[in-house]
Amino acid sequence: MKQNVKLILAYDGSRYRGWQKQGNTECTVQGELERVLFHITGTQTEINGSGRTDAGVHARGQVANFELSSNMEEKELLYRLNRELPEDIRVKKVQFVERSFHARLSATGKQYVYQIWNDDVPSVFERKFVYPVAEPLDLKRMQDAVDLLEGTHDFRSFTSDKNMEKSMIRTIHHIMIIEEGKKIIISYEGDGFLYNMVRIMTGTLIEIGLNQRQVSSIEEALQKKDRQLAGFTAPPQGLFLEKVFYEQIG
Amino acid sequence: MKQNVKLILAYDGSRYRGWQKQGNTECTVQGELERVLFHITGTQTEINGSGRTDAGVHARGQVANFELSSNMEEKELLYRLNRELPEDIRVKKVQFVERSFHARLSATGKQYVYQIWNDDVPSVFERKFVYPVAEPLDLKRMQDAVDLLEGTHDFRSFTSDKNMEKSMIRTIHHIMIIEEGKKIIISYEGDGFLYNMVRIMTGTLIEIGLNQRQVSSIEEALQKKDRQLAGFTAPPQGLFLEKVFYEQIG
Repeated sequence: MKQNVKLILAYDGSRYRGWQKQGNTECTVQGELERVLFHITGTQTEINGSGRTDAGVHARGQVANFELSSNMEEKELLYRLNRELPEDIRVKKVQFVERSFHARLSATGKQYVYQIWNDDVPSVFERKFVYPVAEPLDLKRMQDAVDLLEGTHDFRSFTSDKNMEKSMIRTIHHIMIIEEGKKIIISYEGDGFLYNMVRIMTGTLIEIGLNQRQVSSIEEALQKKDRQLAGFTAPPQGLFLEKVFYEQIG
Repeated sequence: MKQNVKLILAYDGSRYRGWQKQGNTECTVQGELERVLFHITGTQTEINGSGRTDAGVHARGQVANFELSSNMEEKELLYRLNRELPEDIRVKKVQFVERSFHARLSATGKQYVYQIWNDDVPSVFERKFVYPVAEPLDLKRMQDAVDLLEGTHDFRSFTSDKNMEKSMIRTIHHIMIIEEGKKIIISYEGDGFLYNMVRIMTGTLIEIGLNQRQVSSIEEALQKKDRQLAGFTAPPQGLFLEKVFYEQIG
């Protein structure tokens, strides 16, 4: 009997070229998973991710699904996957789900988190998972900017995607700025995010926090739909795909 | 004018052979610091650590001191050290202190922290800084054992040091077990710790938490002064030198 299997995954993206398999290139998360799955089941299996993550981007809650032909329990599959996967990829959950579930097509929203280390002494233990900013960030200004980003907008200024045909309208339900010691965590929840959108919003917020940019520049950027009007693309190492939302199953 | 300089240091011990310089061996924290200091000051300088940390052990608050001949402000020295040190060693604080201060001899106590990851799925992001234990630990039993370890005892059963001449009497002021999600943190504060003592106490506590050992075995081990009666030596990657205490300066 064939099973539709949902995986929840965490990975340290530092040494990967991103989620998506690229031809013969090793060193993608999808590639590693498919290699291990082939070794376990003997069947070449295509894994659907909820979406790509870029080179160097991490995940605490990436979701993927695939069709399993073998007769195996959820627990056994979890155990065997984790036993063979490299230590920077972990399957957190294996769940047999209804046939209609598709990690990308069924997704109704996502949460990304960007981590900044705001201190003149960089972090030793989180250095691979934060973007270091030495000068103090003005969180109040950043919060004012966040209020302008939330909601439904055309985010053409906030993406590296140059496709003119595509709709760039997205809804951001909630952006939260959390101070945790020297770590500043920006959490983004929305129905979907464009290519590099979280990293460009973060770069823009950092420039605002450093007083290098007006809060109102957000409004202008949203209106004029010009990538030049938004901030820099914050580097991948601070970014985590935190969670993928679905209607039915969690 | 010569200055006595106190450093507070954090380091990721993963790729080091420990704190202490060993002949020509590169890859010790002390060796890295002395190399960078020589480059900055032009003077070969010996750095005193508060104590050794073993290969693979980390520090959030190691303390060291040395004599500086150059004319430099605290801030400039901090900046220049961190600019040249590898990213897994950071100077958190530079402080000019009275001549009598000595990182090891003036120390009145230390705090070590041991981090356990207690889940059947190992951690991706903390994997280098925790010891993974898949089976659930019984924290109540561990707490009972902790009560027996606190106080002044001859800890000969809890060290790899075989020197029969030396006094092995130490006072543990406080051991605390903290649950932080899947992470279990054991914090040890005492006037001093013998070689491998924190790792052996941790190994013993883990065996008790896994029901592989009686709580009362602690009393027996303390009384009989026999290394065989204590538990295994927990691996170095979970251990942090958290803080060194001094009477006068902070």
